[in-house]
Formats: sequence, C-alpha cells, structure tokens
Amino acid sequence: MSMSETLELVSENRSFGGWHKRYRHYSRALDCDMIFAVYLPPQAEEGRVPLLWWLSGLTCNDENFMQKAGAQRLAAELGVAIVCPDTSPRGTAVPGEHGSYDLGSGAGFYVNATQTPWKTHYRMYDYLVEELPSVVRLRLPVNGRESISGHSMGGHGALILALRHPGRFRSVSAFSPMVNPMECPWGKKAFTHYLGDDVSSWRQYDACELVANGASRQRLFIDQGESDQFLEEQLKPERLEQVCQEHDHPLTLRRQPGYDHSYFFVASFIEDHLRYHAEHLYK
Amino acid sequence: MSMSETLELVSENRSFGGWHKRYRHYSRALDCDMIFAVYLPPQAEEGRVPLLWWLSGLTCNDENFMQKAGAQRLAAELGVAIVCPDTSPRGTAVPGEHGSYDLGSGAGFYVNATQTPWKTHYRMYDYLVEELPSVVRLRLPVNGRESISGHSMGGHGALILALRHPGRFRSVSAFSPMVNPMECPWGKKAFTHYLGDDVSSWRQYDACELVANGASRQRLFIDQGESDQFLEEQLKPERLEQVCQEHDHPLTLRRQPGYDHSYFFVASFIEDHLRYHAEHLYK
Repeated sequence: MSMSETLELVSENRSFGGWHKRYRHYSRALDCDMIFAVYLPPQAEEGRVPLLWWLSGLTCNDENFMQKAGAQRLAAELGVAIVCPDTSPRGTAVPGEHGSYDLGSGAGFYVNATQTPWKTHYRMYDYLVEELPSVVRLRLPVNGRESISGHSMGGHGALILALRHPGRFRSVSAFSPMVNPMECPWGKKAFTHYLGDDVSSWRQYDACELVANGASRQRLFIDQGESDQFLEEQLKPERLEQVCQEHDHPLTLRRQPGYDHSYFFVASFIEDHLRYHAEHLYK
Repeated sequence: MSMSETLELVSENRSFGGWHKRYRHYSRALDCDMIFAVYLPPQAEEGRVPLLWWLSGLTCNDENFMQKAGAQRLAAELGVAIVCPDTSPRGTAVPGEHGSYDLGSGAGFYVNATQTPWKTHYRMYDYLVEELPSVVRLRLPVNGRESISGHSMGGHGALILALRHPGRFRSVSAFSPMVNPMECPWGKKAFTHYLGDDVSSWRQYDACELVANGASRQRLFIDQGESDQFLEEQLKPERLEQVCQEHDHPLTLRRQPGYDHSYFFVASFIEDHLRYHAEHLYK
C-alpha cells in the first residue's frame, strides 16, 4: 500500500445508526496532509453502498456540511455514504495562503493551479478527480456508484466535475453554485491567481462554458435562495439558465423565496437532493 | 417598554419555511447584553405556538444547537418554537471569566451565584426562570405552553428548572445530562466557585437531590450515549436511576450504544424528543 492510501482515523462519532468518521492522509497531488470526512450509513455494515460526494464552499473544511446540513438522517434512511473533502490544501506555507478568505487556504476553487506560487500545492482538481476517489474506493465500503453535490464554490466544483466527466456521476446537484466564475469577482480573482491572465485556460473550470461547449447532457439540479446575499454579484443563476436553454441542456433551477446563502438554507432542502441522488444511485 | 424588553435583531435566516432569528437584549438579572436564538416555525405566522426551551452545554452559546441538532425540520412539522439562550453572562470582565472552559464564560451552570466575584453577573437561574421568559412571551408569537430540554450542563439546567417548578413545563427531557453535579468534578468546581463551600446551598441545583426531596412527579425523559467520554466521571446516570426508583419518580432513561457526547448524538435522537414534547404541548 502506498503512502497516499494510508488513512489515519482522526475521529469517529456514531450518527443515526451509522458512523461519521474523519481521516487524515498524505495527498501526492497536493503534497500535504489532508483530512476528509465520511458518513457511512448503517447499510454499509452489511455491504458496499453508493456514494455522494459533497464539495463545500469558501472558508469551509470537511466539518461544515457534516455538522450543519442534517444530511445523515437521510443518508441513513436511503443507504448512501457521503464523503466531504476539504476545500484546499492545508499548511503548505504558500505565500499569501492565509491573506484572504477567497484565495488560498479554504478557497481551492477545485482547479489545478498553473501559476507561481500556487502550482506546487493547489491542485484540487486532480485531487478530486483521481487521488481521493482512488483512496475512497479502496478503503471504504462503497460500490462505485457515485453522485456529486456541493454549495457555493463547492456547487461550482460539483458542476464542473460532472460536466467534464459525462457518465461518471449518476446525478449532480448544487446549492447556490458559482455557475459562471469567469464573470464574477470571486472567480476572476481566484482564476487570475491560480491560472494566470489567459482567460482561455479558465473555460475548463466554468460551468456555463462547459454547458456551451461540452459533451454532457446530464441534468443539473440546483437550488438557489432568492435572498442570497451573493446572488446578484457572484452567483448569477440566470446565466446558467440562459446557456442551458440555448444549448438544450436539462436544468432544474428552483428559486427559493426568502432563503439566504447559509447552511440553514442547505439544511432546509438537503432532503430533496439526497432523495434525488438516491433515486439515481439505486436505479 | 423597559430596557430589558427591547430586542435588537442580530440576524435572521429562513429555515424550513420558518425563521431562525438571533436577538440581543440587555438583561437586568445578569447586568450585561445577552444574545438568544429562536426558531419560529411556519405556523407562527398564523398564530401563537407552543415553545420548547433548549439549554446548551459547556462552551456553547445560542448557536450550537441551532446549527448542529437538525431540530428545525421537526419544529416546522410539529409547529413548535424553540428558544436557545446563551449558557452564561458575556463580556462582564469578572476576574477569571475566561480562565477555563468549565467555569465562567460559557459555563453558567444555570445557578444564581452567591460568591464574589461571580455574584454580580452569574445569575443564570433568575435569567431563565423570570427575565427571559417574560421577554419571550411579550415579544414572540408563543402561547404560554412550554417544555424544556437540554444537553449536558444544559440537561442539568432543564432537569432542575422542571423539578423546581412543577406544572410550569408540559414535559422535560435531556441528552447526556449532569444529573448529580454535587458529586461530579465539573459540578463541584462550579458550585464551589459560584455557591461557596456550604454544600447545603448546592442541593437546590442538583437533580438527584430535587427528586429525593422535591414535589415534582413529572416524568424525566433522558437519552444517554453509552460511549460518552464523560459518562463515568461526570454524568453518572445510574445515580438518577437509583434515586428515581427509591422515590417512585417516573423516569425514561435510554442508553444508546456507541453514541458519544457530541451533537452527532443529539441530532440522531432529537426527533424522538421533539415528538415527545409536541405531544405534551398540543395535548
């Protein structure tokens, strides 16, 4: 077993008849130790179960979703495991890593950085496409059926991973995702630092661009709060709506009146998403 | 309207069709500003609803339960409001207030301190018996039917408030409560500092003593994780079990195999508690 497949159990908590566990492992892609969390439903004690990936947003780590979304109840009922990766490399001592909440630590944006000083560690795309899935499939009782979801920056991550890998995820959903990071302040800042000034290299990480130019026709299921404080400047779901309409890409976009960007919003609708994914995972 | 009835809205989040709100107000009992949280279910927009008080444990404030317990889904379904007070006065500059996690800030133990330097601010018992309920009944859409629950130190608080005020709460429950604080390290330390060396003054704040000597015959409903890291040294549920048996006090004590002291445990069984309270609140 190679180093990257060695898992150290950080903590475990019994939860809804299953287990919430946190593991530490060395990531080759990121060249640092990483922690991820998994919820294993009770069914995982009898055999292998399908898996939902959850990608979190800016400033989060593996803990936010597991503590705040209330997903374990449904995952236990439906027999679905959930893995929550961290949102960036950690403790890499890259200059500027801790300078702002929307760049560096806690803000990996699920891309492979090509620019100095980020390119040596900030390779979350590779980490999530190749390395962590290999570890999870090898070491956890999962059966290879996978879906993906996420929130905000993590919604962006879920959409681009699904759009770039048709057939890999049985279903994809997102809460309040950055659908067009090339054209919003958060995305422009991060992509400039991680990918440089050549915007043609940004398109592979932009859901609107991937819908316009991609091979996937997988339905995108999105919940967006109408009172989200980031709606107009950063999230702009109408852009995805328009490009999906132009390119005949299936989209279910629900606007939820009164809801904001917080996990109170995610928790309110996580049941719909988990039931949606379970339908596809058990089909 | 007096000062203590002036509420400042700190934040609000739509949640399961209702609202999670945080309010700041000046407490006369504690002589400081306090924040509390409330969940108002959708039914509260149509009329007044019953109320569950939730008292939290060491180190917590009003946020832990609201973010981690997953109670809003049930509260919305059942039509029950939930109020989460803070666990101590805040920002009072009492010497030693921030010296340890189990004394001072975040560790009010729901008592009225009689000892210097604590006695000027650390009067959580009065705050919860008189002042905050008055504010809540006056300013929030509640109908006067109330139940109470809590976790750990907050389970202790819920039990002593219910045992000392027969008839006031329609039902009482607790997760992992300190049932006999006079005889555990946490309680001994706090009671010595807050109440002094005369242990006779401690008995009014000890659930086992109140069962042995009190007027209440209200059922106590308790969940306790069997893998709780504080079970043997601090919590000692068998003491309450014994005194309830000796004094013919109704007790439902469920021991949950594998569960620890965390909110993963609380979340796993909060549905049972909310349904139990709703049955009594709507009877």
